[in-house]
Order: sequence, then C-alpha cells, then structure tokens
Amino acid sequence: MPTTSPVRHRVTVIPGDGVGPEIVHSAMRIIEAAGVAIAWEEAAAGAAVFRAGDTSGVPRETRDSIERTRVALKGPLETPVGFGEKSANVTLRKLFETYANVRPARELPGVPTRYAGEGIDLVIVRENIEDLYAGIEHLETPDVAQGLKLITRKGSEKIIRYAFELARREGRSKVTAATKANIMKLTEGLFKRVFEELATEYPGIRAEHLIIDNVAHQLVKDPAQFDVIVTTNLNGDIISDLASGLVGGLGFAASGNYGDDVAIFEAVHGSAPKYAGKDVINPTALILSSVMLLRHIGEGAAADRIEDAVLATLESGAAVTQDLARQTGGDVEQATSTSGFTDAVIGNLGRAPMATLARRARTPDPTASRLPRWDYSVGHYAAISRALVGLDIMLESDLPIEELGPSLAAVAGDTFRLEGVASRGTHVYPGEAVGDSVRWYTARYVAAEGREPRGRDLLDLLGRVAEHHRWTHVERLQSFDGELGYTASQGA
Amino acid sequence: MPTTSPVRHRVTVIPGDGVGPEIVHSAMRIIEAAGVAIAWEEAAAGAAVFRAGDTSGVPRETRDSIERTRVALKGPLETPVGFGEKSANVTLRKLFETYANVRPARELPGVPTRYAGEGIDLVIVRENIEDLYAGIEHLETPDVAQGLKLITRKGSEKIIRYAFELARREGRSKVTAATKANIMKLTEGLFKRVFEELATEYPGIRAEHLIIDNVAHQLVKDPAQFDVIVTTNLNGDIISDLASGLVGGLGFAASGNYGDDVAIFEAVHGSAPKYAGKDVINPTALILSSVMLLRHIGEGAAADRIEDAVLATLESGAAVTQDLARQTGGDVEQATSTSGFTDAVIGNLGRAPMATLARRARTPDPTASRLPRWDYSVGHYAAISRALVGLDIMLESDLPIEELGPSLAAVAGDTFRLEGVASRGTHVYPGEAVGDSVRWYTARYVAAEGREPRGRDLLDLLGRVAEHHRWTHVERLQSFDGELGYTASQGA
Repeated sequence: MPTTSPVRHRVTVIPGDGVGPEIVHSAMRIIEAAGVAIAWEEAAAGAAVFRAGDTSGVPRETRDSIERTRVALKGPLETPVGFGEKSANVTLRKLFETYANVRPARELPGVPTRYAGEGIDLVIVRENIEDLYAGIEHLETPDVAQGLKLITRKGSEKIIRYAFELARREGRSKVTAATKANIMKLTEGLFKRVFEELATEYPGIRAEHLIIDNVAHQLVKDPAQFDVIVTTNLNGDIISDLASGLVGGLGFAASGNYGDDVAIFEAVHGSAPKYAGKDVINPTALILSSVMLLRHIGEGAAADRIEDAVLATLESGAAVTQDLARQTGGDVEQATSTSGFTDAVIGNLGRAPMATLARRARTPDPTASRLPRWDYSVGHYAAISRALVGLDIMLESDLPIEELGPSLAAVAGDTFRLEGVASRGTHVYPGEAVGDSVRWYTARYVAAEGREPRGRDLLDLLGRVAEHHRWTHVERLQSFDGELGYTASQGA
Repeated sequence: MPTTSPVRHRVTVIPGDGVGPEIVHSAMRIIEAAGVAIAWEEAAAGAAVFRAGDTSGVPRETRDSIERTRVALKGPLETPVGFGEKSANVTLRKLFETYANVRPARELPGVPTRYAGEGIDLVIVRENIEDLYAGIEHLETPDVAQGLKLITRKGSEKIIRYAFELARREGRSKVTAATKANIMKLTEGLFKRVFEELATEYPGIRAEHLIIDNVAHQLVKDPAQFDVIVTTNLNGDIISDLASGLVGGLGFAASGNYGDDVAIFEAVHGSAPKYAGKDVINPTALILSSVMLLRHIGEGAAADRIEDAVLATLESGAAVTQDLARQTGGDVEQATSTSGFTDAVIGNLGRAPMATLARRARTPDPTASRLPRWDYSVGHYAAISRALVGLDIMLESDLPIEELGPSLAAVAGDTFRLEGVASRGTHVYPGEAVGDSVRWYTARYVAAEGREPRGRDLLDLLGRVAEHHRWTHVERLQSFDGELGYTASQGA
C-alpha cells in the first residue's frame, strides 16, 4: 500500500514538446501512485516559447520556478528552425550550471539485446558545461570556421570528483577517465592530469585512464568491464548514446543533470513529433529519470519501488510498447500504449523483478563530499609566476607562403623574431611548405634573443602586422611557473 | 601459380616499433608470393628516431623516400614519453597531407562476433588533417586550456568528394555524413552544408546526414544500415574504432591514408611492445592494409587474390592466432604464430572463401574525379564583401563580474559598445551572472550605433582594455556577404 510521504516536495515540471507531455504525465502518475507528495510547478520551455519570440527558449517564469524548487523533471524540447540559434536544452544546463550529466546504462530484463546476459551496469558521468559546447565559434575567413574547445581545471575537478563520489555512493569500484590526451595535451591532457591527481584521494576505488577511441572500441567489445566512466563533454555525448544502444536504445535511457544547486532530470530521446498525442511512446526513459529525481530529493525508498515495478513490468513481457515490439519482432499492432504501460507499472508497485540482472545501488555514503581540493583564490593565482613569451597572430592571406613568410619576418622588430608560420597547425615556413593552403596562417612571434617583451610590445607588433595583413585572431604566448603554455606546430 | 607482374613498383616500407617489423614482414612475404614485384625502400620512423634526437620522429631520409615512391606501408610507431611532443603517425599524415583516412569494417568469416550474420560492410572516411588534430592549443590562464577546432570548406570538400567518389568506385549506394552541426553551427555546420551541396552532384547515391551521437548509437543498434560514413577528424577517430570493435577488433582493422600525391597504409593497432619479437601477433590488419595498397597501385587482381586467401584462411579455422583464440575461447597455447598464419595465407593463395559475407568491391569507375567545385582563387575571395563588426577580447580577471563588466564597458570608447561579457560561452553581463567563474571571460565589443569601425580602431580598443586587464586572446568579429561570422553567447 502506498504510504504518503510526510514531506511535500516542490518540483518544476516542464512537459516540453512532441511526446513530452505524455511521458511526463506517465511519470507523474506513477510517482503519485507510489505515495510521494509533490507539488508540481508546471513551466514552459521549448518550441512554443521560441515561436513566441523568446530566443532562449526558456522564459523568465521557468527560470524563476527552477530557482525556487531547484529540481526539475523535463520532457524533450525542440528548437524550431528559424527561431533562436541555441538549443533550449543546452541553455537550461548552462543557466543552472548543471555540470554533471549522469547517464546510467544497464541491462534490463525483458529487453533483448546482443549483449543480454553480460551484466552491463555502467554509469557515464559527462562534463556538461565546457568543451566545444561553450559554443564559441568564429569564421576566420569566409571558408575557415573555428570553434574553441575549453577545458578548465575547475570544471574538470568538479566532474571528476562527482564521478568518484558517485562511485562511493553507489558502491562502485572503478572509475575510468576517457580522454584524447594523447593528441590534445593541453586541453584533454588537463582533464587527465586532474583525474590522476584526484584519484590519489580515493584509494578504495580503482582509477584507470583510457583513450576515448579505445573506450568506444571496448564498449562494443566488452562493455561489462566498465563501472563509472568520466569524460569531457563531447566524448561523453558520443559514448553515452553508444552505451544506451547496448542496452535497448533511447526508449530506456534515463539521465540526470546535476549542479551545485539545481538538478534537472530528463529522458535522453527527442520529442518524436510524429508520435505526439498518439499514446504510443515508451515512457520508460522518463520514468527511470524520475527515479533518479526521487533519489535526489531523498525519496530513495519510493525510487526503489518504482524502479522495481518498471523492471518487473519489463520482465513480465505483459506490457510491451511499440518500440520494444519492433525490436523483438513482436506484434506492433498489439503493443501496449503509453498509458497502458503506465497502468502496468502502477499495478506492479510492490513487486520486484525475479532476475536481478544488475547490482542494486547502495546506501549513500554520508561522508561523500564535493569540496574542491585546489585553491582558486586570488592569492593562489597571484603566486604563479608568468612570463610573456610572444604572440601568435592568425591571419588571412592570398600571398604564397614564400612571400608571406619573409613579409611577416620583416615586421618582427627588435623585440621579437618570427619563429615560424603554420597552416592548420602544420609548420610551413621557414622550410618547405607542403599541403593545401586554406589562406589562413598562424605567425608565431617569440622574444628575440635576450629581450623580455612587455604588454605594450605585443600591441606594437600587432600594429606592424596589421599594416600589411588582415589579422583575424591573436593569442598571447605565456609561460606559467616556467612551463610553456602553448603547443609547437606539427613538423616544426 | 604466381605470375610476376611486369611492373616493378617502388614502395617505402617503415617497419616501425614493437610488433611492427613482424607484421610488415608478413605482408611483404605474402605480396611477394602473390607475384607482385615491389622494390621496397626501407625507412625509419618512430621510437628510435625520437630517441636519436629528431623531435618529429620522421627523419629527412624517410620523407625523401616517400616523396619519391608516393606510397608507403607502415608498421605502428611509438612516441616515447619525454622525446618529442607530437605523434610521428600524425606528423606523417600532416607532412604528406593524406587528408582521407579510410577504414573499412566488414564482417569476416571465422571471426565470431555478436553481430555475425548481419552483413556489416561499411567504410568510414575520416577527414585526417583538420579539426582538433590541428593541435593548436594555448593555456589562457594557468587553469584554462583552449584548443582550436578548425573546419574549412576546402578540407570538407576534399573529404566529402572523396567519400562520394569512393562510393562510386566501390559500387556503394549510400553516404552518411556524421556531424555535431546542431551544436557547432559554424564548424560542424560548415561540413554539413558542404555535404548537402556536394550531394546534389551525385544523384545516384543516397545522401543522409545524422548527428554523430546518433551514428554511434545506430552503429551498435543496427550497423548493417551503413554503407559509407564521412565525418570530421575526431568524430571519425571515435566511430572508426567503435566500428572495428563490431567486426572482431583491431587485429583485423586495415586503413589507408590518401592524399593528392601520397598514400600511406597501416594497421590501426598500436605497437604492442609486450608481444614484440615473439612471433605471436595477428598480422591480418596489416595484410588487409597491404591489400588496400595493392589496389591503390593498380594491382587489383593480386589484391583480390590476397584478400580471398586471408578470408579463406580465417574461414577454415585452421590457423587461429592468439587474439582470435582468446575471443573464441580456443586454446591460446595452441594458437598459430604470426609466421604460421602468414604461411597459411600464402598456402591459400588461389583459394576463395566459401561464404561470401560481404559485397565485393567493383571495378573502378573511370569517370571518378576529385576536382574541386568551388573557386578558391584570389578573385573569388576578393568578391566576398566583408564588414568589420567588432572585437571579442578574452581576458583573465580576478574581479567579480559586477566590477569587471562596468570596467570593460567604460573603455569601449565612441566607436564601440560592450555588447556583453560571457564566461565559457554563457552570457554573464549585463544581467544576472550564474555559475562558476573560471577567471576567464570574453568581452564582446560591437560597433556603436551609426559607427563603422576600421582596423586601427580595433588596436586602439585593445590598447584601452590592455591598460586595465590581462587580455589573452582576441578575435576580429566580421560579417561576410552580410552574414555574421560568429555565434551569440548562450542565454544572451
């Protein structure tokens, strides 16, 4: 019998677009039937909001509601073409700085896959704010587009610590960091170094680092080897969708986005407009997302009951939605509706699946903490010694490199010398230039022998280059505590 | 009986590190047994070269040899820690501008996988020069690392056309472009737009675009749906390793790197130092890479014979290397050696596999072409109208945003106004700032009402900002033919 919880929680609910309202309704019905008292604040976001002229897709009232409740359950959102250039989903993550995207992938009973019986039970912890998702892009020339990949120590520390603490909380024994540090030594390399440093604080948890392409390879070869995987934003985007494919697809893929103050729970799948309003979509992904929500607000017992009821329902095979019927070669015409599946889960509250295919989450460890280890204070940064090394000047030019190179060298002045010119990161001057020109080059100027350039010298140098060339992008070359803060060009 | 080909080809061979010499020797023996006359020019690259003090890992003599022969067969190369910061593999690709990395993944007889019988036969065509592999990284502050993702129209055009022409050449019917254009509208978006434009030139080939995370998902859910996949560098890195995991692993993963003038063929796997010199490694990947080499130099008949012999050998199960024995639960102690497997393939020359699991490559289409469609001339670029819109100035600052913002606005001058300040791409000023500071901001200055800034104004603005703040990076904001060449910050 459901016993109504004494706490009355406030939660923002965003029904969203397409099939969103149906699956959100399904989850709300189940939560109510499980006896959790929630005062839902319904809020808008997505297509209708964009069409009404709000280019963020997330109106003020919705932001206010989430600031109040600090927890949201969200259906999929669309960004209609021609309205607003940024995704409302990403805007929500950014506005509330939900830096940890958590995507469990585990084998489910009654969901046949090629990997059934192998015991997949992993969690992907994806950094959710930085990396290429900062969305800072510039056209350097009409035909050269540039995006910034940003990785910070603070952002890396937060997500990596989150992953280790999640492992402790769920009684998991291994955390794998997945990066491309072998190629991107400063950005992905920073993430890897922070991982290695933090791992020493968790002697009870096995820490390993694998290159992201190897992780993708291992996920299809032997996914059961993984426990917790922590990774940067784009890597995590790709491998979390990969992992959901191993265990039945997006219809079963739950997710939570956790920040310091706010958590937002959502199904991973899209709004599937062609199924909207037809009562046919599989609501499992959003129901399992709401289970994560319940655990987050301290309703662990109800979360366990709902999760067990979902697993028992899937295992029984008595309520099979269209997507699953299609995967199993069943009769799609006879498939269970969204509301029928919801009724079946409610009917199974109190039941547990017969087969326990995956480890059960353990009790939260009360000593879990997410405090930073590093000192991010003004004093800390002031104590780091810096030296000005030179300037990278990126420029657009139609000149052949054998003219461009000497022209750039000629304006170096007394304080600097032209170390070299690179095209798309490959050294092309001095020496033999190879490969295609894309009419965009990086001129690297470093301090001339015995000179110590100052900030003003950088501006003067840029001024001299600007007299002859159309510069598009400038980078200060620095060293920090004696280490160069930039990479050499390839083949230099 | 092998008939010796009348042509005597010159090919550079780089034995490489670890197991490299063994697998390269295996492929050379088989090619010789198949009757193709090759004058091999042996050349060095990798660990020993780095240790001898060459920071590129690729010595002059090796570069000269490849320039002469234009074709290379290469074992895996190591970049020993502490010597040279760039991978010799990447350096080779860059130096010879082998822009097309081609990675077939197809079901092999006798190699049991979860996907056996589904008929996987796809080719991943990965752009090999640009993207984050340009390797242009800067530390903006001690704790903020930045890498540049570069996508050019020319680079995109070359690889996309390569993919369509490969489809024609091999009689394939579909090309899928995989991008993250929904998030990175300028960079990945450029690749997608070029794909859509070029697709119209190939009416006989079905062209589709999928988001990269969906491609990763579909590759594990239903890989047989794919034919040719064309994608940017990092995406391609991840999904090509994923795809090789579907069909038996890296021991079977061949690859070719094609440029305008040079092609380099290599196994995908690493140097596996712990197996070096033990005669136990599976040479199939390098043998199949040498099959791609033979097709490239016009020895298609010999290539077919060797490929058939490899397939027949695998199918027979009579020569099972350690890696495969491990996968199939066979007796690793009794596994076939590298040289034993090589002997078996040579013994099977002239045989074909009984089951033809995958489509056979068709005759090259003599009309295949790779000429550019766009005009990359000086005149073309001169005709594009440009306007100077403003300046992004990235800077390091310990100030709280409510002080930093006004301070940046105060120096805008008459020509510019401060449009806003963003932190990691998210708008933080004016308005309410949310989220973590990483002490690094982007100040966006745009032309003040009615003003048309000139180049000199940019330098003056930067000078004014530099008086109060430590700028690290500057971007010229431009429009091209009336369209803004940069993205808005999130939540602005």
